[in-house]
Amino acid sequence: MTRKGILFVISGPSGVGKGTVREALLEGRDDIQVSISATTRPPRKGEVDGVDYFFMDRETFLKKVEEGLFLEWANVYSNLYGTPRDFVLNHLNNGQDVLLEIDIQGALQVKEKMPEGVFIFLSPPSIEDLAKRLCQRGKDSQKSIEERLAACEQEMQQMCHYDYVVINDRVEDAVSKIEAIIAAERCRIHQ
Amino acid sequence: MTRKGILFVISGPSGVGKGTVREALLEGRDDIQVSISATTRPPRKGEVDGVDYFFMDRETFLKKVEEGLFLEWANVYSNLYGTPRDFVLNHLNNGQDVLLEIDIQGALQVKEKMPEGVFIFLSPPSIEDLAKRLCQRGKDSQKSIEERLAACEQEMQQMCHYDYVVINDRVEDAVSKIEAIIAAERCRIHQ
Repeated sequence: MTRKGILFVISGPSGVGKGTVREALLEGRDDIQVSISATTRPPRKGEVDGVDYFFMDRETFLKKVEEGLFLEWANVYSNLYGTPRDFVLNHLNNGQDVLLEIDIQGALQVKEKMPEGVFIFLSPPSIEDLAKRLCQRGKDSQKSIEERLAACEQEMQQMCHYDYVVINDRVEDAVSKIEAIIAAERCRIHQ
Repeated sequence: MTRKGILFVISGPSGVGKGTVREALLEGRDDIQVSISATTRPPRKGEVDGVDYFFMDRETFLKKVEEGLFLEWANVYSNLYGTPRDFVLNHLNNGQDVLLEIDIQGALQVKEKMPEGVFIFLSPPSIEDLAKRLCQRGKDSQKSIEERLAACEQEMQQMCHYDYVVINDRVEDAVSKIEAIIAAERCRIHQ
């Protein structure tokens, strides 16, 4: 019998660098399947259905919501995004580990449905550091940054629902800690 | 406040290679304190009290047993061996991680007293492989090997009391898995 795969969830406050860490983590390894989101937003140039996202119209998406076919979903700037349940479950049942990179609200929804997942909280070294990151990436207005920082202080309190905390001080260090967590969890005896 | 240290227990059937793995693991790292056993056996040439063992006479040892000063103890060929509780606790309270390499009976005793420890079961790839190891090291008679193998089959059933299982196929692989477990546990959020 094949062992069941493990669901690894990388999550953390907005701006902490989840995407960068995920990309660095996956570079050169093919032993973990990234979860692919469904979305109602139209494909951008070069995006491929089933690779970057599962693109679908609003009606199809909401029908799937009703049928319980998302592990979590959210409305982001009027576009709907969700994590297709069966895509994740099928890989896990085939013995393949799955990686899901997601915001904190989404992670908490996933945890309700799949408490056996491994939940990793990616944390900024400090609120000051997060402020610096948000300013440096230059995508956000002063007001938006202040709102994000206030949200972050709230979000940090959700850390207690996670299994691990990894401080994203240097990307290489965060990645090697997550690699260690993946290797360790593969040795875990489930009681 | 300093974080409390973590107790890592490496354990497994007799002959699986616990000592070799422990030595390879500790080579070049000083971030983990090895637990030093107490014993009533006389020091061998070159052995230093407080470094290799805490040497003590039988009366002192048994008094400590009565006072509950050992996390576990056992009688091995008429010599008493034990894990001094305070040595371990003092290091943990100072924020230092402690490594204890011990047989399965000892590990189960330690787990009763310190269930918060991280218990790693070092497993042979198979009973056949363990038989080969025992024959190759040439220390044991045919009868003794047969007894050990029967004991091992029993001992393998204790695996369910552990947190992790690491198969000692190649020493380097076992060591890197234990390194991953140590790194991961240092990121763990205790709930």
